[in-house]
Amino acid sequence: MTEGLGEARKRWEDTVLGPVLKRYPERQPEFTTISGLPLERLYTPEHVRDLDYLRDTGFPGEYPFTRGVQPTMYRGRLWTMRQYAGFGSAVETNRRFHYLLEQGQTGLSVAFDLPTQVGYDSDHPMAEGEVGRVGVAIDSVEDMEILFRGIPLGRVSTSMTINAPAAVLLAMYQAVAEEQGVDPASLQGTVQNDILKEYVARGTYIFPPGPSLRLVTDVIEYCSQRLPEWNSISISGYHMREAGCTAVQEVAFTLANAICYVEAARERGLEVDAFARRLSFFFNCHIDFLEEIAKFRAARRLWARIMKERFGARDPRSMMLRFHTQTAGCSLTAQQPENNVVRVALQALAAVLGGTQSLHTNSMDEALALPSEKAVRIALRTQQIIAYESGVASTIDPLAGSYCLESLTRRIEEEAEAYIRKIDDMGGSVRAIERGYIQKEIHEAAYRYQMEVERKERLVVGVNAFEEAEEPPTGLLEVDPAVAEQQRAALERLRAERDGDACRRALEDLERAAQGTGNLVPPILEAVRARCTLGEICDTLRGVFGEYRAPGEM
Amino acid sequence: MTEGLGEARKRWEDTVLGPVLKRYPERQPEFTTISGLPLERLYTPEHVRDLDYLRDTGFPGEYPFTRGVQPTMYRGRLWTMRQYAGFGSAVETNRRFHYLLEQGQTGLSVAFDLPTQVGYDSDHPMAEGEVGRVGVAIDSVEDMEILFRGIPLGRVSTSMTINAPAAVLLAMYQAVAEEQGVDPASLQGTVQNDILKEYVARGTYIFPPGPSLRLVTDVIEYCSQRLPEWNSISISGYHMREAGCTAVQEVAFTLANAICYVEAARERGLEVDAFARRLSFFFNCHIDFLEEIAKFRAARRLWARIMKERFGARDPRSMMLRFHTQTAGCSLTAQQPENNVVRVALQALAAVLGGTQSLHTNSMDEALALPSEKAVRIALRTQQIIAYESGVASTIDPLAGSYCLESLTRRIEEEAEAYIRKIDDMGGSVRAIERGYIQKEIHEAAYRYQMEVERKERLVVGVNAFEEAEEPPTGLLEVDPAVAEQQRAALERLRAERDGDACRRALEDLERAAQGTGNLVPPILEAVRARCTLGEICDTLRGVFGEYRAPGEM
Repeated sequence: MTEGLGEARKRWEDTVLGPVLKRYPERQPEFTTISGLPLERLYTPEHVRDLDYLRDTGFPGEYPFTRGVQPTMYRGRLWTMRQYAGFGSAVETNRRFHYLLEQGQTGLSVAFDLPTQVGYDSDHPMAEGEVGRVGVAIDSVEDMEILFRGIPLGRVSTSMTINAPAAVLLAMYQAVAEEQGVDPASLQGTVQNDILKEYVARGTYIFPPGPSLRLVTDVIEYCSQRLPEWNSISISGYHMREAGCTAVQEVAFTLANAICYVEAARERGLEVDAFARRLSFFFNCHIDFLEEIAKFRAARRLWARIMKERFGARDPRSMMLRFHTQTAGCSLTAQQPENNVVRVALQALAAVLGGTQSLHTNSMDEALALPSEKAVRIALRTQQIIAYESGVASTIDPLAGSYCLESLTRRIEEEAEAYIRKIDDMGGSVRAIERGYIQKEIHEAAYRYQMEVERKERLVVGVNAFEEAEEPPTGLLEVDPAVAEQQRAALERLRAERDGDACRRALEDLERAAQGTGNLVPPILEAVRARCTLGEICDTLRGVFGEYRAPGEM
Repeated sequence: MTEGLGEARKRWEDTVLGPVLKRYPERQPEFTTISGLPLERLYTPEHVRDLDYLRDTGFPGEYPFTRGVQPTMYRGRLWTMRQYAGFGSAVETNRRFHYLLEQGQTGLSVAFDLPTQVGYDSDHPMAEGEVGRVGVAIDSVEDMEILFRGIPLGRVSTSMTINAPAAVLLAMYQAVAEEQGVDPASLQGTVQNDILKEYVARGTYIFPPGPSLRLVTDVIEYCSQRLPEWNSISISGYHMREAGCTAVQEVAFTLANAICYVEAARERGLEVDAFARRLSFFFNCHIDFLEEIAKFRAARRLWARIMKERFGARDPRSMMLRFHTQTAGCSLTAQQPENNVVRVALQALAAVLGGTQSLHTNSMDEALALPSEKAVRIALRTQQIIAYESGVASTIDPLAGSYCLESLTRRIEEEAEAYIRKIDDMGGSVRAIERGYIQKEIHEAAYRYQMEVERKERLVVGVNAFEEAEEPPTGLLEVDPAVAEQQRAALERLRAERDGDACRRALEDLERAAQGTGNLVPPILEAVRARCTLGEICDTLRGVFGEYRAPGEM
């Protein structure tokens, strides 16, 4: 008579585990993921008894996409190696882009400076001290042209981390591409264009939620009609995770925001299958290896179910959660920065085992300063080693079936689903954000984690364990203060040389359009072509929409 | 009616996969592991249909130990972080040991220089230019005392990479421990003491196979009686893997050698359960992530079956494959050495997911020179980040159940078993080595791999892909040429100050013992205590046993 699994486990617990536990207690009374999910000592087939392979796991490229969105995954094509980069002027950043492409990077990702992100020109008083600091300064289509000089926009895919003024930068990109002779319909890339998470975690909003959501939807609609290969939004959990939320919250809040965007587009009268295939996502990859792999798989399955069951999508592409991943900046340490190479390697591996479509690996000095060329190169090499040497790209979703990972996948999906139900009950994510619910949940999770670190229940190497006296960092990259001066001079020249009347007319047209209900991307594109600056375009919209002030902000 | 898995797969292949494959062929016609095992596009429950959980996987700490040798694994205690270290004199190496222990290393591992490994004193003509170069120079028990100064041998565990003269260095260690007042019965550590692989791959043999095997068995026997907590051998696949063998061969040839040692000990009249629990193993962890994890699991299961079924072991501890792992030196590149931090991180993670008991992570500059203190620290931090931050130590054997990994585990076990049968048919591993069979198999595998690299069918980042102009390496550690001089002076002083008659008598006793059949460890211990040098002891044995010359060697 064969012993059943349950009996066998019981016998093992009594005769093997029990005596050992009595003599040698475990290192901790309980083990949890970095997000606080309980981790069992041992996962066995008992833990996946309810898993129905065809229903829950299935095949890659097929609903519910747990195993990945393409049927050949990385055997067909590797993920896009896309390092987020940008600093100083368009000239400098263009040089970095060329360097990265020469090093084997396969996609571009633009970091804009803060003034650009909140719609101020470099000569605006609010831009003081920030021009070119955390990204490249882009004031007009002329800067955009310099940024992509020598890079054929018909053959590269470009991601732009831009939200409140996403429509403006997208219009500039399209204008530059057209000047290069590239058909907009063939343009590949992504605008972040995800304003909701700005109110929650990132802070680069301009307008109140209502008009913001209109602009987001304008871009989604415009892309579905004119830029069919362009990802019209990158719905981002990354920054909420950086702000301290858990893996479950990252999935839940991101998908809740995604639901809001889908609803907004449907209210605009768009068919779900007309735009949903160009929604894309952006997740963090934190240091908890198993939890992160499970998170990506759970997010894919949950989104597929939402799109199919809730929104009645019929095109499988509408159900695919395609995502970019960035390794977790918040997990890096200023102490012993070389250790960050290790952290990033583990995180990048988890992202690939989780089936990401695109990946940014942080540079080891990113916790200290702008990444140096050498640090950026090591970060890119990390991806290449995983791609070409580690073998994990040779078979699809290699960890499927793991009792532990499948259990975690299920758990994360269920807990995220419960959050989404709760947000639905509040009236959706705009309401949940307005009530401060999402912010509070993130805040509490961040606090819990911080307390664990302070009590040394969680060790961070070099921070609360294995500390050492540090040599001061050397060779850090600083932004040249001349950048702001150059930008101001360029703006002056632009304003002197352009057709001032055409500019004024374009801005007036935009103002009228904003007062109406039509799509704002075409008039923005006209303004961009007329050499209106980012600040002028955003000021025009500010005049109509007003500005958002966070609760408590003066 | 529910669709069966086979039908569903067929339908997926026809309707989802097929059309995509037709338009976008995969990157390669076939995908294999770095060892040449085929990797399927997708693993599903069909691939593990024959897996019987209780028979093949079971519970950790229980036969067949697939999931690990302890029932709580790393929740109970983390693996031992054991960095292989040694260079120059005992004084310098002692300083490095203290540094490593301060940095949080949890076990010691001694690298000896080549003269020590082949039983020559530092003043022997053959030692010229090699004293202290690849490890520490140890000539007598006095050097050994300096090596462990300030380190309580009753509380640390020490691994010594020493083979032909293993008995001598072990005796020195015991003598130093006794001088520290430590009971030998409580000593924890390992001597490599694995001579067979020296003939195959490593080359630091002294005597012919017959007397070598006798010495190995003497140490096994002696430890089983006097040093019950000491691992009497570390049967090593590491160096065969470095020489270019495959993962399957690494398992097969290591276990075949282990079988030979078990048989030798049984011929000596030892009961298998009297010594087998102190056999330990030493594996490589190469860059093929999935294959390596599977390799460790397969090796554990296969060894348990061999010990139980072939040798009739009854004590579960005799069936446990406990192993040390070192990341693959051969996978590191002299080009862009920082990339090695990434490789080592992936390899260390695989070793931990594979359930290693002890781990050495290579330093990034190990392909160039002796590791610098900073490089050693990063390597150790790699282990600490995996241990404390990645979460993979919080649940046991987390990848069990993965369709891919379980399939690979099974495949590696079966192929290794087939090799062992073949070696059995040749009359065991000594015969297979004498016939050159094992060397030839390794050679062919190494050649196949090298050809793949040359044809760029396998990319190695920085070597045959993503190369760049290199700056010459800086800050490399060099051995001080004064070390040889100091060692010679110390030997001169030792010979002048010691009791010459006692020395002579001890060596004569050893000679007589070697001519007989008794265990040689006790007379070696007496010689060590009488301040005989390593070279004198080994010369005495050379006089009786002769020296081994490899075929073709003059």
